[in-house]
Amino acid sequence: MNNPVVLQQQTHILTEKGYEESREWVAVEQPYRVALNDREIGASMVLATGLEEFGAGFLFGQGYIDHPGQVREVLVCPEGRIEVHADVEEDFAPREVIITSGCGGTGKISREMLEGKIDPLQEYSLRFAEAGEFIRQALLASDLGQKTHCVHGCGLWAEGRMQVFFEDIGRHNAVDKVIGAILLGRAPANGAVYTTGRLTSDMVLKCARIGIPIVMSRTSASSLALAIARQAGLTLICYARPGRLNIYNAPERVRWDNPPVAA
Amino acid sequence: MNNPVVLQQQTHILTEKGYEESREWVAVEQPYRVALNDREIGASMVLATGLEEFGAGFLFGQGYIDHPGQVREVLVCPEGRIEVHADVEEDFAPREVIITSGCGGTGKISREMLEGKIDPLQEYSLRFAEAGEFIRQALLASDLGQKTHCVHGCGLWAEGRMQVFFEDIGRHNAVDKVIGAILLGRAPANGAVYTTGRLTSDMVLKCARIGIPIVMSRTSASSLALAIARQAGLTLICYARPGRLNIYNAPERVRWDNPPVAA
Repeated sequence: MNNPVVLQQQTHILTEKGYEESREWVAVEQPYRVALNDREIGASMVLATGLEEFGAGFLFGQGYIDHPGQVREVLVCPEGRIEVHADVEEDFAPREVIITSGCGGTGKISREMLEGKIDPLQEYSLRFAEAGEFIRQALLASDLGQKTHCVHGCGLWAEGRMQVFFEDIGRHNAVDKVIGAILLGRAPANGAVYTTGRLTSDMVLKCARIGIPIVMSRTSASSLALAIARQAGLTLICYARPGRLNIYNAPERVRWDNPPVAA
Repeated sequence: MNNPVVLQQQTHILTEKGYEESREWVAVEQPYRVALNDREIGASMVLATGLEEFGAGFLFGQGYIDHPGQVREVLVCPEGRIEVHADVEEDFAPREVIITSGCGGTGKISREMLEGKIDPLQEYSLRFAEAGEFIRQALLASDLGQKTHCVHGCGLWAEGRMQVFFEDIGRHNAVDKVIGAILLGRAPANGAVYTTGRLTSDMVLKCARIGIPIVMSRTSASSLALAIARQAGLTLICYARPGRLNIYNAPERVRWDNPPVAA
């Protein structure tokens, strides 16, 4: 990494006792442009980690890439440009996009996608105890989150272990990085995603489109996120804690056959 | 309001004791299109409250509207369209936009704005005790936030009282609603803003462009948010609590001449 992703900053803390100098860690937010086959598609503010994955995931989120195997190469220029080369139709056209609410980076989905049919999801189920282990590992992995209070984390669990984990200032971007990892063949889609951010429509839609069958959040989901999960048959879990899952849809993918031993 | 903004949803809570049925409140996320003088500018997912303000603030965020007094009329069609009529040049052109990171709705700023000069901010200072009162009132006003854990709140304090307070699934959108209120003459710009969301570049830039001199967050700010605050001379406060402010820039606008009486 050429550029730092956190910086220390001087601050003044004011209480009823008066001023006190302090220092805080601040997450570095940077604009990156994303190009597909030498054509610029858009620009996004990001935390400059997992940029290859971000580039691929960003293009997937906006509907330019559909499935793993299409991306041939990703080049990251530290001055703020991600170049994705992929096997897509040459006359790809921009789609009508909806800027999405919530805590989010790429934050764009096409109206077409929102109304379109979703293919069957990957086959996968998760043991209850495994879900707890995943959440524990994801929270421990989020060191920038603990340092800056300004980033969201998103991880993917499959084959009994956490395959990838990414952070970003945007919760959308962190999900895009995970999806980019799937597109680049660095993680499988038949697994479970956990994010520290709220689940809004675009995040659940992206996971459903790539085939991820289980999506968990540390916090809540919106009405439309839940509607999309129902339409796709996706297992949506909110307020996910080790030992406690609040399952909004398709609970059958969480297997309670092996509950954790009480502490 | 024609459409509900919260819904109750059935869920299953899974613990080591097994399943238990439950119900949770879920925030309703809906797409709304925004048009300026009958030309469609974009669409955004929102919480359907403060939609007139949102329409105006959305157009400001994207650079189509610059100052209060331009907006003549805002019409909200409950099926998902906000029509803003404003005195702007007829040949307004789309700008190059950067999709912004973080927790956000409109989440777009133009590169031009990011690099442009910011006019002097409004004159305003806040007593330390007043800041605490503002935070207290804003947190109490956020009933959807407490119910759904899925919305951010944003308020504006001026002339010794909270003038407006809005919620949205996107923290960007909640700020847009406050800025829209200023554009519509429903709140003054010479005051302080408090948001429950993280402060990213676009949020601080919007506040600076409309002239708001003090911006506070319940949580953190990104590096670029801080850089913009410094460039604009804006007072940026993080981790704001009644009785404790962490001031990152221009602390002189918070007057400690009247500290609160210890509880």
